[in-house]
Amino acid sequence: MKFDVSTTDGKARRGRVTTAHGSFETPAFMPVGTAATVKGMMPGSVSDTGAEILLGNTYHLMLRPGAERIERLGGLHKFMNWPGPILTDSGGFQVMSLNDLRKMTEKGVTFRSHVDGAMVELTPEKSMDIQRMLDADITMAFDECTPFPATPEQAAESMRLSMRWAERSKEAFSERPGYGLFGIVQGGVYPDLREESVEALKNIGFDGYAIGGLAVGEGQEAMLEVLDYTAPMLPGDRPRYLMGVGKPDDLVGAVLRGIDMFDCVLPTRSGRTSQAFTRRGPLNLRNARHRDDNRPMDADCACPACTGFSRAYLHHLIKCEEILGAMLLTWHNLHYYQDLMRGMRDAIAEGALNAFATEFAETQALGDIEEL
Amino acid sequence: MKFDVSTTDGKARRGRVTTAHGSFETPAFMPVGTAATVKGMMPGSVSDTGAEILLGNTYHLMLRPGAERIERLGGLHKFMNWPGPILTDSGGFQVMSLNDLRKMTEKGVTFRSHVDGAMVELTPEKSMDIQRMLDADITMAFDECTPFPATPEQAAESMRLSMRWAERSKEAFSERPGYGLFGIVQGGVYPDLREESVEALKNIGFDGYAIGGLAVGEGQEAMLEVLDYTAPMLPGDRPRYLMGVGKPDDLVGAVLRGIDMFDCVLPTRSGRTSQAFTRRGPLNLRNARHRDDNRPMDADCACPACTGFSRAYLHHLIKCEEILGAMLLTWHNLHYYQDLMRGMRDAIAEGALNAFATEFAETQALGDIEEL
Repeated sequence: MKFDVSTTDGKARRGRVTTAHGSFETPAFMPVGTAATVKGMMPGSVSDTGAEILLGNTYHLMLRPGAERIERLGGLHKFMNWPGPILTDSGGFQVMSLNDLRKMTEKGVTFRSHVDGAMVELTPEKSMDIQRMLDADITMAFDECTPFPATPEQAAESMRLSMRWAERSKEAFSERPGYGLFGIVQGGVYPDLREESVEALKNIGFDGYAIGGLAVGEGQEAMLEVLDYTAPMLPGDRPRYLMGVGKPDDLVGAVLRGIDMFDCVLPTRSGRTSQAFTRRGPLNLRNARHRDDNRPMDADCACPACTGFSRAYLHHLIKCEEILGAMLLTWHNLHYYQDLMRGMRDAIAEGALNAFATEFAETQALGDIEEL
Repeated sequence: MKFDVSTTDGKARRGRVTTAHGSFETPAFMPVGTAATVKGMMPGSVSDTGAEILLGNTYHLMLRPGAERIERLGGLHKFMNWPGPILTDSGGFQVMSLNDLRKMTEKGVTFRSHVDGAMVELTPEKSMDIQRMLDADITMAFDECTPFPATPEQAAESMRLSMRWAERSKEAFSERPGYGLFGIVQGGVYPDLREESVEALKNIGFDGYAIGGLAVGEGQEAMLEVLDYTAPMLPGDRPRYLMGVGKPDDLVGAVLRGIDMFDCVLPTRSGRTSQAFTRRGPLNLRNARHRDDNRPMDADCACPACTGFSRAYLHHLIKCEEILGAMLLTWHNLHYYQDLMRGMRDAIAEGALNAFATEFAETQALGDIEEL
C-alpha cells in the first residue's frame, strides 16, 4: 500500500492511496456498504458519484453470508461487483454497538449471532483472518471502541486492551503487496491517553492510522479538540482516518486538522429517512411545504435526483413509501458528500482551504431558499 | 394517434403506434408505474430495458398526489421524468379491486379514499378529465371490470353499463393531436356478449380497443379462448390491448392471437418478492440452493443483474432484505419481458412466430439448469 501526499495547506493534505484494487484520492469519503451493498445504490452509481473506495462491515458479513462463503465466491469485490478499493472494519465496534449478548475477555469478544443464534467468537486473530477472506485492501486492527462518557481509568484500561489487540492484529495480519493494515488510536477525550495510544501504535508500525472512539456522543467541539492534538502526533507519511464521521461540517473541520479518510452511514441512512444534504443545509423532503415545489433539491447539484426530479416529486415518492424515493435521496446525498470532498481536495491544491471552509459555513448557514 | 402495421404473421401483427410523446413498437409490454414510478427503477433504467411506453394508474394518482397537482407541475411525463408515451387506465378497475367502501350507480362510482378518508366520485366524465390533467397519451374509457365468475345475466348487465359509460367517455374525451382514447370490450367468457360489446364500441369509434375482464381467475385456457373469437372481431387498423396480462406464456399466446399491447405488475411485483423470470422458467432467488451459486440468474440475459452479479449475491441481498435485491430482480424481469417482446416482434417480421412460440415453450419447460 502506498500513500503519496501531493500538496499540503496548513495541516490539510491532498494525496493518493494506492492499493491492490486501484487507488483513491484523499481526503476521501468512503460510503458504507454494510452487507456488501451501499443500500439502495447500484455499485456503478456509487462510482458515478465520485466515490473510489467503499467500507464493508466485518461483523455483518461474517454472520451473513459468511467470510468463508465470500472467499469461495471470489472475494468481496467480485461478490458485490465493486472492482475498486475496499476497507473493512474489524467487527469490534459493531459487536459493541449492535449486540447486547456479548462477553469481553483479554482474548476477544464472544457474542450471539442475530442471524442464527449461534455463539460466535471474535479475536484479533479471527478478525484478521476474516478480513483476509473478504479480501479487504485495507484491514482495520481489532479494537474496543471506548464508550463515552468514560472516566480516565476506564478510558486507559480500554485503550491499553486495544493496544495489546493492535499488536496481536499486526502479528496475525498476512502481508501482501497492495494490502495494508491500519491501527486505531483510542484514549477518549484525554490527551495523555491519546498520546500513549499513538506511541504504542507507532512502535508496532502500521500502514495508516485511524482515530477511533469519536462521534460517540462527545459533540463536535470535543471531537475537533481531540483531532487538534492527536492528528499532529501521527506519522505524516501515512493516511489518517477518522472513523464513523460525519456531518458535512465535521468533514470540513477534520480535513482542516489533517484527516485524510472518513466513513459514515449519514448520507445513506438519511437518504432512506427523507433527509437531504444540500449546499444550503439539510432539507426534509417529507415536509408538506415541498409538495407543490417544482424546483430541484439543490440547484447547484449535478446528480440524477437534482437534474431529473422536482422536490414535489421526491416528496410524493416519500409519502407513498416508494423505493425510488430512498434511491434518489441516497444518490443525491452520496453525490453531495463526494462534491464536498472534491471541493476540499481542489481547495487544498490551490492553498485555499480556509477560504473554502469559510464559504462553506456561510452558505450552509443561509438555509434553504424560500419557496417561489 | 397513429397505428401502422408493418408485417403480419398469421393473426399476429408487428407495428408502431405514434403518440404526442413519441412512438412505440408493437407488440409492446408496458411496465406499470402505479404511483408515478415503476417501483424500484430509475426511469432511464426502465427505458434501457427497451420499454417505450408506461402505464400509470388513475386511481392512485388522483388520490395522491392528485391530478390537479400533477397538471400544475407540468403533467405526468415531466413529474416522473418519463418523456415517452404514457397510457393511463380509467380508475374503474382499481376502485373495484382495491376499495371495499364503494357504491356503484348508473352515474359512476363513489368510494372512500384510502389516503385521507374523503368520499370521492369517479364517473366517465371525471375519469376523462383526470386522464387529461395527467396528460396521458392514451386514455382508457371508464368501465366496470366484470367479476369472475359471473352468470350470463350478470355479465350482460355489467357489459351494457360499460358500453353506456364508453359512450359517455367518448363524448367527454377531449380530442387533441397525438392523443387517443381506447374502448374496452367486456362480456366475460360469453361469445355473444363479447360480440355485442365489440359492435357497441365500433359504433362509438375508438383509437384502439382493449379486451378487459380477463386474467381475473378464468385461467389461461379460457382467456385464450376469449381471444380466439374476440380479437378477429376488432378493427384490423387499430391497436388491440389485453389488459392486466400476464405471465410470459400468456404474452406469447396472446400475440399469436393478434394482441398488440400488454401491461402487468408481474415482472415488477415478482422482482420485489424474489421471483425471477428466465429463459428456462421462473427462479425463486430466496431458495437456499442459490447461496453458493456463482452463476448469473440467466446466462443469456444482458441485463445489469445478470452481467454483474451471481445468484449467490442476489440470494444474499434477499435474505438481508436489501433494497438492491428488489432493484436488481425488477430490472432483470423488465429486461426479460422486453427481450421476449423484441423476440416476438423479430419473429413476426420473419414470418417465424410459430417456430418462436414452439421454441419458447420447449425452453421454458426445460427448467433451471442443475447446479454445477
